[in-house]
Amino acid sequence: MMRVFIDSGATKTEFLLVDSQGDTTQFQLEGINANYTSKKQIERIMKQFAATIGGEKGEAIEQILYYGAGCMPLHNQEKIKEIIQPLFPTASVVVHSDLLGACHATCGDQPGYVAILGTGSAACYYDGEQITNLAPSLGYLLGDEGGGIYLGKLFLQYYLKGVLSDSLKQCFESEFEVDRARVLHLLYRDIEPEKWMATIPLFLKKEIADPEVQQIVTLNFTHFFEEQQRYFKTESIAWHVVGSLGFHFQEQLKQAAQNLNMQIVQVIAQPVHQIMLNFAHYV
Amino acid sequence: MMRVFIDSGATKTEFLLVDSQGDTTQFQLEGINANYTSKKQIERIMKQFAATIGGEKGEAIEQILYYGAGCMPLHNQEKIKEIIQPLFPTASVVVHSDLLGACHATCGDQPGYVAILGTGSAACYYDGEQITNLAPSLGYLLGDEGGGIYLGKLFLQYYLKGVLSDSLKQCFESEFEVDRARVLHLLYRDIEPEKWMATIPLFLKKEIADPEVQQIVTLNFTHFFEEQQRYFKTESIAWHVVGSLGFHFQEQLKQAAQNLNMQIVQVIAQPVHQIMLNFAHYV
Repeated sequence: MMRVFIDSGATKTEFLLVDSQGDTTQFQLEGINANYTSKKQIERIMKQFAATIGGEKGEAIEQILYYGAGCMPLHNQEKIKEIIQPLFPTASVVVHSDLLGACHATCGDQPGYVAILGTGSAACYYDGEQITNLAPSLGYLLGDEGGGIYLGKLFLQYYLKGVLSDSLKQCFESEFEVDRARVLHLLYRDIEPEKWMATIPLFLKKEIADPEVQQIVTLNFTHFFEEQQRYFKTESIAWHVVGSLGFHFQEQLKQAAQNLNMQIVQVIAQPVHQIMLNFAHYV
Repeated sequence: MMRVFIDSGATKTEFLLVDSQGDTTQFQLEGINANYTSKKQIERIMKQFAATIGGEKGEAIEQILYYGAGCMPLHNQEKIKEIIQPLFPTASVVVHSDLLGACHATCGDQPGYVAILGTGSAACYYDGEQITNLAPSLGYLLGDEGGGIYLGKLFLQYYLKGVLSDSLKQCFESEFEVDRARVLHLLYRDIEPEKWMATIPLFLKKEIADPEVQQIVTLNFTHFFEEQQRYFKTESIAWHVVGSLGFHFQEQLKQAAQNLNMQIVQVIAQPVHQIMLNFAHYV
């Protein structure tokens, strides 16, 4: 008997296989967002997953628990299920939103405020069973404060406005082999500028010793928390955070929260391991 | 003898022909931004212009004065000149940025603060001869506060966050035949979401009697003026404004300026007529 936990985000999809002895195998494929990724592309990724684990092991899979970006609407949950089920006809397949996955991973059966801070961002209040209050996610064009693409945008605004120190400016230009004209080209003549902007946080992580970088990263989280104040009207909120951006910049995350009289209870990079521990509750 | 004034923006290119009697003919073609519009596309538009005025009149053109979006860099001015010159071999062709065009149209040979508020936005200080201080234009992904696409984004944020009144929400959904899911589709699965966002101000113009709409439009200009405070450090600034968005929402523009201790001297929709009056200075 084998179980599989899947967590799909905009940038990557994590697979965690757990066999009957409790031994785990983990691997990654491309990202899936059920709103934007085409059915054909999702099928391709899922077939690659099936091929990777092999026919014999595939037949042994009894339960698949999928948490995914874009899986809040029921019709998207059904779409994902319809793609996965034929590949594993004997498995029971359950599909939830990635935000509910973050709640399961962090809060289990307790209530709490939960945020995803990865490539994009999302936040909610979870009552211990379900999400009862949701800050709508508007995507990188209109929102996603606190996420990786938004952080990339913030940094580029500083760069293009000419307010970065010379040393940081040169460091950025040399790392990405760009100048001002090339940046504008990547933003406005490239068909997927968001993918390029999403790589900028990796550079900022390397340069985190620079106080200017710390300031920009903190500002990204400050914008996130300020935005949440529109939706969650309590004096002091304790946040559970899931996602790579929150995980890699924990110091700035905590600073931004503290400045706004909020606090961070825990930050985990990948929810799949935590979900596994509480598996029995969520299928 | 004939002269031609051309003003190209993101959405449209205006042509003004002036014959030796001073009689004028005006028409419009598609927009050109020398940074983003392909050479082939610019050539196509300019050939259409040449065909429209006809061979005989074309030979009579002695001077062409082109002001264009994206024409701040010299190499883009040269690119435009190289496209136009072969079509009118006997004409003298001069190419300037659209922002300098806005200065010529509003300030003439006097100094002043000048803004373009059209599909995008730009601002500068003009000393009566040239632009000596420039607020960099970052485009709709990172900037363009005060422009039409930014206004569209602001409105969509209100809509998607569910903070619009029911009546305005229904009015918008019926006008554009959309719901929340369709809006997200247009934003994130369409390859040119900015073109759709740029149409939203037309709707807001129709609904300007609604105080909620007035508030959003004013906020757009407030963001523009707040942004300018980073670049132009004077106590009180008097602005000359060129462009459709500033022209169509003058009341909100003046309100936003006044709230920040600035003022609006004049607003003109199309600079070409004004430029014509001062023609002798700028060729």
